[in-house]
Amino acid sequence: MKFNDKLRAAWSFSNSLLCVGLDPDPVKLPAQLRGSSRAIFEFNKAIIDATHDLVCAYKPQIAYFAAQSAEDQLLMTIEYLKAQYPHIPVILDAKRGDIGSTADQYALEAFARYQADAVTVNPYLGGDSITPFTRYADKGVVILCRTSNAGAQDLQDMQIDGKPLFLHLASKVSNEWNSNRNCLLVVGATWPEQMRQVREVVGDMPLLVPGVGAQGGDVQALVKAGKTAEGTGLIISSSRAVLYAGSGDDFAQAARRVAMASRDEINLYR
Amino acid sequence: MKFNDKLRAAWSFSNSLLCVGLDPDPVKLPAQLRGSSRAIFEFNKAIIDATHDLVCAYKPQIAYFAAQSAEDQLLMTIEYLKAQYPHIPVILDAKRGDIGSTADQYALEAFARYQADAVTVNPYLGGDSITPFTRYADKGVVILCRTSNAGAQDLQDMQIDGKPLFLHLASKVSNEWNSNRNCLLVVGATWPEQMRQVREVVGDMPLLVPGVGAQGGDVQALVKAGKTAEGTGLIISSSRAVLYAGSGDDFAQAARRVAMASRDEINLYR
Repeated sequence: MKFNDKLRAAWSFSNSLLCVGLDPDPVKLPAQLRGSSRAIFEFNKAIIDATHDLVCAYKPQIAYFAAQSAEDQLLMTIEYLKAQYPHIPVILDAKRGDIGSTADQYALEAFARYQADAVTVNPYLGGDSITPFTRYADKGVVILCRTSNAGAQDLQDMQIDGKPLFLHLASKVSNEWNSNRNCLLVVGATWPEQMRQVREVVGDMPLLVPGVGAQGGDVQALVKAGKTAEGTGLIISSSRAVLYAGSGDDFAQAARRVAMASRDEINLYR
Repeated sequence: MKFNDKLRAAWSFSNSLLCVGLDPDPVKLPAQLRGSSRAIFEFNKAIIDATHDLVCAYKPQIAYFAAQSAEDQLLMTIEYLKAQYPHIPVILDAKRGDIGSTADQYALEAFARYQADAVTVNPYLGGDSITPFTRYADKGVVILCRTSNAGAQDLQDMQIDGKPLFLHLASKVSNEWNSNRNCLLVVGATWPEQMRQVREVVGDMPLLVPGVGAQGGDVQALVKAGKTAEGTGLIISSSRAVLYAGSGDDFAQAARRVAMASRDEINLYR
């Protein structure tokens, strides 16, 4: 099944554009899990079980696993998702970017080793660094476009012929790099005006939107700026605000409450 | 010890600007190693033992390990280098790029987990995505500037106020991001003219130069364009041409011959 079809089905099935980012920070895990040798997996499993009906995707962030030598628990998390909730797309947030045979290895990491449905990638090295990913026609390739941080302005806003770089990139992806129709773009929730401009360029291409919750993106503004005519087109990702809503025995229920409130707030403006 | 001091000492000690890239591709490993459960480590060890006196650095490429679930063998390789050849800098080629707490995790991966002396990073997310790495003042942070592939032109050559993006980036790194004096830049060996322009902007900042050997960079042109007044300033990386010089029992000796020829050719033009 093609990634965008799986995503569309998930939007519809859960009536949700919310994605929960799995960023398991060891210093923030609930106390009762900390002794376990697979605390990260147990944490992710509890969050997933408490939120699966509220989301259109999960987005594990590989850096949190790599820093803890916990690649095995990343794999266990994705295997658990595939076994229990096979209809929910898994986006591996890795922001990989390299060329030639090295990019081939990164594509193997994401799609063969971890069986992710999609992976985030960095466009700085150009179109031939993206092809090793997009040639997996059933997988989604989520290309950084306009990120949510303040420093995004340093390169992404550079003006070229009166237009910022990130809009040139959006056109390039839409017109040149997307021949397998499996590209998506990252546009940070903190920049609704930039999101509106990207949406204008890319038609109904899905956008991954980090930066709501802890990073403070305005939900109403971003949904209005980014949604498609059908009221979808967005994968709105929240990580810390959901994961660390509570730190006691009821952390998973606290996460559920925040995820439900986020989903409902997003749906108000679709 | 600061990375640049370690690098300067290694240039001098080995009288070499050559770096060997450790890209252990399982389908190219010599037949006699393929049965071993730690074939990747054994291969790297043999290459390192055969070339250590000819190089100024080693550059393991993490994608090759990640695709094989072989993070343990990457760690063993770096631990072996630190134990046997502690004077040789280890540059982890990972091209990481992310923001805030996620970038912190990637810095932990490179510097705490793997004990790399330097790591390659991607500048697309801007200055605040680089700070989590540069604040490790003793470590080197090697920022992609002008890469060796054809697609490098897509974004890196975009003209802004009459100057390509990669030169704007080089200025920004030199003048703003390098307050700890631990930044380096990647400039592909296939573009001597671009290397000359970057060298003009960044003074004596060291440049990591992939693309000689298999990718066909012209050694004479790149050394002349990129060297500093002292005849150093370059870390010229060759991977496949050295690693896979031979495939029989004498693969390590074949690698040594190619590495020696590369070192000597580079030294002709310093």
